Amino acid sequence: MKFKVTILGSSSALPTTNRFQTAHAINIHERLFLIDCGEGTQIQMMRNNINFARLNHIFITHLHGDHIFGLYGLLSTLSLYNRTRELNIYGFSMLEYILNDFLKYFGSEFKYEIIFHAVNVRQQKLIYEDKNISIETIPLKHRVPCCGYLFREKVPELNIRKEMIGRYKLTLAEITKIKKGYDLMCEDGSIISNEKLTYKPYTPRSYAFCSDTEYSKKVADIVKDVDLLYHEATFTQNFMKMAKQTGHSTTIQAAEIAKQAKVKKLIIGHFSSRYKDLNPLLHEARSVFPETYIAKENDVFEIALEKFKE
Amino acid sequence: MKFKVTILGSSSALPTTNRFQTAHAINIHERLFLIDCGEGTQIQMMRNNINFARLNHIFITHLHGDHIFGLYGLLSTLSLYNRTRELNIYGFSMLEYILNDFLKYFGSEFKYEIIFHAVNVRQQKLIYEDKNISIETIPLKHRVPCCGYLFREKVPELNIRKEMIGRYKLTLAEITKIKKGYDLMCEDGSIISNEKLTYKPYTPRSYAFCSDTEYSKKVADIVKDVDLLYHEATFTQNFMKMAKQTGHSTTIQAAEIAKQAKVKKLIIGHFSSRYKDLNPLLHEARSVFPETYIAKENDVFEIALEKFKE
Repeated sequence: MKFKVTILGSSSALPTTNRFQTAHAINIHERLFLIDCGEGTQIQMMRNNINFARLNHIFITHLHGDHIFGLYGLLSTLSLYNRTRELNIYGFSMLEYILNDFLKYFGSEFKYEIIFHAVNVRQQKLIYEDKNISIETIPLKHRVPCCGYLFREKVPELNIRKEMIGRYKLTLAEITKIKKGYDLMCEDGSIISNEKLTYKPYTPRSYAFCSDTEYSKKVADIVKDVDLLYHEATFTQNFMKMAKQTGHSTTIQAAEIAKQAKVKKLIIGHFSSRYKDLNPLLHEARSVFPETYIAKENDVFEIALEKFKE
Repeated sequence: MKFKVTILGSSSALPTTNRFQTAHAINIHERLFLIDCGEGTQIQMMRNNINFARLNHIFITHLHGDHIFGLYGLLSTLSLYNRTRELNIYGFSMLEYILNDFLKYFGSEFKYEIIFHAVNVRQQKLIYEDKNISIETIPLKHRVPCCGYLFREKVPELNIRKEMIGRYKLTLAEITKIKKGYDLMCEDGSIISNEKLTYKPYTPRSYAFCSDTEYSKKVADIVKDVDLLYHEATFTQNFMKMAKQTGHSTTIQAAEIAKQAKVKKLIIGHFSSRYKDLNPLLHEARSVFPETYIAKENDVFEIALEKFKE
C-alpha cells in the first residue's frame, strides 16, 4: 500500500537546464494524483514510468504559467492515447475559462471529458474523498488566488487477528461485523471485546503541498503533524524582503513552518533559477529543521507504513 | 559568419523520455531565428546556450500542439527577462487568436509587444528579409494549414582584392564604388574591369525546413539545390499508408525529395514515438539519399562557408 511522492519539477518561474517547473505525482494505494503541471510535466512523467492511464485527478494551486503550462501538452497526449475516461481538474475558478479556450482550439478530437472543479482557495475544505483518502485545500498567501493540498489516508478498516478466527470458529458474517467494530457475542453468552479480536493495520499517512506562498502561520496549523510537508523555499534567507514582495518563502521560513507544525519530514523546492548549487538552501533550512530534504527532479519520497499508534 | 541549425526537438506528436517536440534554432550571422516551439523549447534553448535576448523572430509551421505549446512558457520567460523589444511571430492567421487569448490571461505584466505576421501558407512568398538573408514560405500538405520556411543568404557584397588597393592607389570613394560593381576609370583614361578588382567572398547558403507534410513533389521544386534540407520522416516505409492518412512522410519519401531537389544534405526528424532505435530510419533514407542525417536533440548542423562558384 504505497504512499509515494515523485518530484517532477523543482524550479520556480524560470526553469533551468536541469530543473523543470512545478509538478508532483502522488501515488496512494495505486491511485495517481498530480499537483500542478509546469511545462515538461508529461516528459517527466514518462521518465518516471508514471502510467498516464491511471491519472484521473489533477490539482492546480494557482494560475501562474510555471504551474500550468504543461497542461496543454499533457491533455493533448491523453487524447492521443485514446483516453475516453473523464479527467477531473481542480483549481481556482478562472482555470475553467483557460481550459475552455484551450479546448476551443485544440480539443476538437478529444474523446474524453474534462470535469472542472472550482475550489475555494480561501478555506480549508474537503474537495475529494474515496474509500482510502481525503484531500483538503490549504489556503496560501500569494500574489494571486492560491491554495495547497493536504492528502490524508483515512483510518484503515480493522483487521481480524488471525488466531481469533480459529479460536472462536468465526463465521464470515461474524468476521464482517467484527471488522466494522462490533464485539463478539459467544454461544455461552460471554462477550469478547472488539479490541481483543482486531487491530488497526497501520497509522494513516499524510502529505501536504504548500506552494506558492509567503510565510503564513495559519499554514502551520493546517499541516500540523503531517508525515511529509512540501513547502516552497524560493529564496535563501538573505532574500527575505524579495520573498515577501513576490509572495514567496525563504528556506528558514519553510523550516519554521515545519518546526511549528511538528511534521516528520520537510521537502523544500520551487527554487529560484539564481541557485546553481542548492546545498546552501538545504543547510539553512536544516539549521532550523534538521529533517529537511531538497526536491530534485525524479526524487521519490515514500512514506513507509507504520504500525498503528493511538 | 555563421549559418548554424540547432535541433531542439526531434519528436512528433508524442514526446519521449529523450526526444522533445519540434523546434529548430537558426543562427545566421549571429541573428537568431526559431522555427516551431514545442513543449520544452525554452529548456532546450537554455541547454544549448542560446541567447534569449537575440531572439526576435519565431516562425510557426502550423497549429498542432506539438509545434506551439512551448510558446506559452517561452513568451512568459522573455517577460521575466524584462524584455522590452518587440517580438515577431509568423504563422497561420488563427495563431493570432490563440496568442491574444494567451495574453489575456498571462500577458498583463508583459512589457514587450508581440507583432503577429499572418502568412499565406498556400504560396511560396517572401515574408522576411534583411541585409543578409531572405525567408520564404514553402507550402506543405498536412491535415491543417501548414507551411515550411526557406532561409537563404543573399549574394554577399563584393570584396576588393587587397593587392589592387596599392596597385591603383584606390581612394575610399573609389573603393565604395567598386564594391558596388563599378569598373575603375584610371587617370590615363584606361578602364580596369570590376571583375579584376573584386571577388564574391562566399557562396550564399540555404536551409529549408519542411514539417509537417506528406510527400509533395512541389516541395522538391521549391527546395531545389539547398545546402541543408530538414524534411520530416515520421514513419518507416512500411507505414506508408499511415503516413498518407495522417499527412506525414516516410523515410524514403523524405529521401526522394532530397534526391529530386539535389540538396547537399538531408536531416530527417519528427519521429514517431514508436521508434526507440532510429538507425532503421536512417538506413532506409540513406538507401535513397546517402547524405542523410538523423535529427537528435542538441545536434548542430553548420553550413560551412565556401568560395563563390558561378
